[in-house]
Amino acid sequence: MSTTKEIPYKIYLSENEIPTKWYNLRADMKNKPEPLYHPGTHQPMTAEDLKPVFCDELIAQELDDTTPYIEIPEEILHFYKMYRPAPLVRAYYLEEKLGTPAKIYYKFEGNNTSGSHKLNSAVAQAYYAKKQGLKGVTTETGAGQWGTALSMACAFFGLDCKVYMVKVSYEQKPFRREVMRTYGASVTPSPSMETAIGRKILEEFPGTTGSLGCAISEAVEVATSTEGYRYVLGSVLNQVLLHQSVIGLETKTALDKYGIKPDIIIGCAGGGSNLGGLIAPFMGEKLRGEADYRVIAVEPKSCPSFTRGTFAFDFCDTGMICPLAKMYTLGSGFIPSANHAGGLRFHGMSPVLSQLYHDGYMEAVAVEQTSVFEAAEEFARCEGILPAPESSHAIRVAIDEALKCKETGEAKTIVFGLTGTGYFDMVAYEKFHSGEMTDYIPTDEEIAASVAKLPKM
Amino acid sequence: MSTTKEIPYKIYLSENEIPTKWYNLRADMKNKPEPLYHPGTHQPMTAEDLKPVFCDELIAQELDDTTPYIEIPEEILHFYKMYRPAPLVRAYYLEEKLGTPAKIYYKFEGNNTSGSHKLNSAVAQAYYAKKQGLKGVTTETGAGQWGTALSMACAFFGLDCKVYMVKVSYEQKPFRREVMRTYGASVTPSPSMETAIGRKILEEFPGTTGSLGCAISEAVEVATSTEGYRYVLGSVLNQVLLHQSVIGLETKTALDKYGIKPDIIIGCAGGGSNLGGLIAPFMGEKLRGEADYRVIAVEPKSCPSFTRGTFAFDFCDTGMICPLAKMYTLGSGFIPSANHAGGLRFHGMSPVLSQLYHDGYMEAVAVEQTSVFEAAEEFARCEGILPAPESSHAIRVAIDEALKCKETGEAKTIVFGLTGTGYFDMVAYEKFHSGEMTDYIPTDEEIAASVAKLPKM
Repeated sequence: MSTTKEIPYKIYLSENEIPTKWYNLRADMKNKPEPLYHPGTHQPMTAEDLKPVFCDELIAQELDDTTPYIEIPEEILHFYKMYRPAPLVRAYYLEEKLGTPAKIYYKFEGNNTSGSHKLNSAVAQAYYAKKQGLKGVTTETGAGQWGTALSMACAFFGLDCKVYMVKVSYEQKPFRREVMRTYGASVTPSPSMETAIGRKILEEFPGTTGSLGCAISEAVEVATSTEGYRYVLGSVLNQVLLHQSVIGLETKTALDKYGIKPDIIIGCAGGGSNLGGLIAPFMGEKLRGEADYRVIAVEPKSCPSFTRGTFAFDFCDTGMICPLAKMYTLGSGFIPSANHAGGLRFHGMSPVLSQLYHDGYMEAVAVEQTSVFEAAEEFARCEGILPAPESSHAIRVAIDEALKCKETGEAKTIVFGLTGTGYFDMVAYEKFHSGEMTDYIPTDEEIAASVAKLPKM
Repeated sequence: MSTTKEIPYKIYLSENEIPTKWYNLRADMKNKPEPLYHPGTHQPMTAEDLKPVFCDELIAQELDDTTPYIEIPEEILHFYKMYRPAPLVRAYYLEEKLGTPAKIYYKFEGNNTSGSHKLNSAVAQAYYAKKQGLKGVTTETGAGQWGTALSMACAFFGLDCKVYMVKVSYEQKPFRREVMRTYGASVTPSPSMETAIGRKILEEFPGTTGSLGCAISEAVEVATSTEGYRYVLGSVLNQVLLHQSVIGLETKTALDKYGIKPDIIIGCAGGGSNLGGLIAPFMGEKLRGEADYRVIAVEPKSCPSFTRGTFAFDFCDTGMICPLAKMYTLGSGFIPSANHAGGLRFHGMSPVLSQLYHDGYMEAVAVEQTSVFEAAEEFARCEGILPAPESSHAIRVAIDEALKCKETGEAKTIVFGLTGTGYFDMVAYEKFHSGEMTDYIPTDEEIAASVAKLPKM
C-alpha cells in the first residue's frame, strides 16, 4: 500500500477484479432492518407469502440477513463484463475549478445504455426470473433509468418486460420510451386504465401526474394476476441493495489499490439503491468498528423522506397492496409537487438505510433542485459528463463539502456516487436554463396530513 | 507477442498509453491529396489565404503533408484524459448471437458526453484558437455530435462558440440544442436569416431542411466577418483526420498487446473523420508495404459520395464560398432526401480518403438506412450499447462480413469503429420501430444534374 503513487484520472480495475460475490450489509448490522410485513395480517411475511409477487431466489435474498457474502452467478458476471468494472474518477478538473484542497473522487455508473447503476440489479433480477422459467416481469419506472435497465436485461435473457412509467416522466422523457422499445419492452404511462388500481386513482385524482408508489401498485397488480409473471423493483428492497454492493466493492478495491481512505462518502437517495450499494463495504467496516467514515445521504427538499419523514411501517405503494416496510416515509400518499424535475420521487426509503440512519450511522441533507442543476452544469462544464438530475444531488453536496475544505484548508478525501447521465433529462435542463425552474418545499401541514394516514400497527 | 492470451471483453489501455503524437498519414502517401484551392483564382491556397478562416497553427497542420508525427500539446493530453483511452471491445455477445467464427472488435468512442469521436478534434481546434488569443469560433453541425463536442471543448477553454445546426437535425433533435446550451454555446438552425448566404438559400428554396454544406457557408461567413473569430470544421479536413488518428493509434496499441492482426477494418464515412482516424496507422503500414488490410468505408445509399460520386474539385459548402477540395463528391448542391435519418449527409469526402480510394487502397459500400437500423437494434440488444445511426452503418457491414465468415467457416478478425451513441436519435429509432422509415436512393439523373454543376477547373 502506497500513498505516493500518482493517481490516474480514472482508476479502472481489470475484469477479473469485478466482485464475484455481493456483500450483504445486513449480516453486519446489530439492529437488523425489520422484515416486510403483510398488509392484511400485519405479520412478518414468509417466503410463501412473497411467492406470488417475487421470484423464489430473490425472496431468499430478501429475507437473508445473516449471510455476509453471496456468490454472483456466472451468467450475471458474464453480463457485468458488458459494462463493468465502472471507473472511479478523480475529479481533477473540478478540484482545480473550485480551488479546493479536497480530493474528490466519483464512481461513475453511467457508462452503459441504461445510463445508470440500475443495470446492476436489473440483470440479477432478470436472470433469476429466467432461471425460474418465468415468461416475463412487470415493473414501474420513474425517471426511466430502471425501466431501461430492466428492458436491456430482459432482452438479453429473452424475457417479456412490462413497464409502468410515472406519467410525468413519460411525458417529459418521450425518448426513454423509445429506448425501452428498442429493447422490446412495453411501456404504459401510470396511472393507466389497464389496472383496477390505476382506474381507481384516476377516478379519485383525474389530473394526477402519477407517482412511483402508484406505478408500483399497477405493476404488482399485473404481475400477481398474470400467469408466469413476477414483479421486480429497482430500489428500496434488501435484494436490490445487495446487488448494488458491486458499486461499493469496486470503489473500495480501487481506493485500496492507491492507499486512499475516504473521509466523506456521499450519495443521492431516492429509494436508496445507489447509496446502499456505494456505502456497503465502508459501512460494513464502520459497523464492525474497523474504520470510520462520514456518510451523507442527499435527497430533494421536495421529497425529504429522511430529513422530514417518520420512521414507521408504511406501504411501498400508493395503492396499499404491497407489503409494509419499516422505513423513513412521508406517507404512501405523498406525491411530490409537479414542478419537481430532479428525480428521487419515492415517498419512502430503503429499510436498511432507514435503520442505519435511525441508529446514527449516517447523515442526511435535503437540497433544492435549482441548486442541484447549478451544480450539474458546473460539473458538466469541467468534468465533461452531463449528469442525471438524481446524481447531481450528490454533486451538489460534494461541491459544498469541497468548498468547506477550501475555507478550512483541510485536504479531505470525498467520494461520491455519480449514478448516471442526463441525456434524457434535457426537458429539465431546459427549464433550468430558461429560468422556469422553481423550488418547492412541502409545508409541515402537508407532510403531517400524509403521515397521519400511515397504517396503524 | 502472444496470441494465446485470453482476450478481455474490453481492452483498456492505461493513461500513459494515450498517444502523445498524432500520426499524419499524408507523410506516407506517394500520391498526396491535392491541397485546398482558392475558389476565385483556382490556385492552391497559401497559409496567408487561409488566415481569415482558420487558426494559424491549424493551417500549418492542414498544409503539412510530410511530417509523419506531430506532438500533441500537454493541454490537449490533459483534456484527452477526461475520456480517453477509449476501450477496444471484443464483441463476444454479438459473435455468439450471429454464430460466426469471425472475431469482432470495435473501438468505442461514445463514452463521453458529446457522444462521439468528434471531441478528439474539437479539443485540439479549441485549444489552438485559445492559444492564438481568439474570442470564439463558429461551426456547423449536422447530427449535433460535432457541435456538442465543440461546445464542451470551448466551455473548457473559455471560448465563445456559435453553432449553425442543419435545420432538419435541429427539429429532430431538440435536446441536442439543450446540451450545447448547457455548455454555453449559441445554436442557430440553418439556413437562417442571420447571414447573407442563409437568406439567399431560403429565398431560393423556402422549404429546405438544410444541409451541412449550407450550414458551413453560414458559419464561415460569420467567422470571416466577425473580429476575433475563426471557423472550425469537424470533418473532411486534413487537420481533423490528423487529430482523429488517436483512434487508430490506440486501437493498434490495444491489438498489438494481444498479438491480434485485423483482416478487415470497417468505418462509416460521412466526411471521413472517424474512418480516416481509425485506419491511419494501419493504412500507413499498407502504404509502406509492411502489412495488408481490407479497409471498407460504409456510406448511406441516400448520400453515396464514394460509390456514385465523381473524383473532382468541388466546394465544401453549398454557398460556394469555401475553398475547393479534390474529393469524391456528389456536387455541393446535393442535399440528401428529407426522409434520410441516418446521418452522414455530407456531399463530399475527405481529400485524404478520396485519394486513397482513388488509388485502390480501400473499398466502399453503400447501405440502405432501414438495414442500418436493423443492425443497430440487433447490436443494441446483445452488446448493450445504443449506437448512433452513423456508427450503425459500420455495424451493418461488420455483421454482413461476419455472416460471410459463417458461410465460409473463416475465422477472420474484423475491427470496426463504433463512433458514438444514439441517445439523441430516438426520433429516427421511433420512425424505424413504427415502420415509417423508408429508403431513398437518388436516381442517376439526380446525381448527374448535381455533378454537372461542379466548378470548371
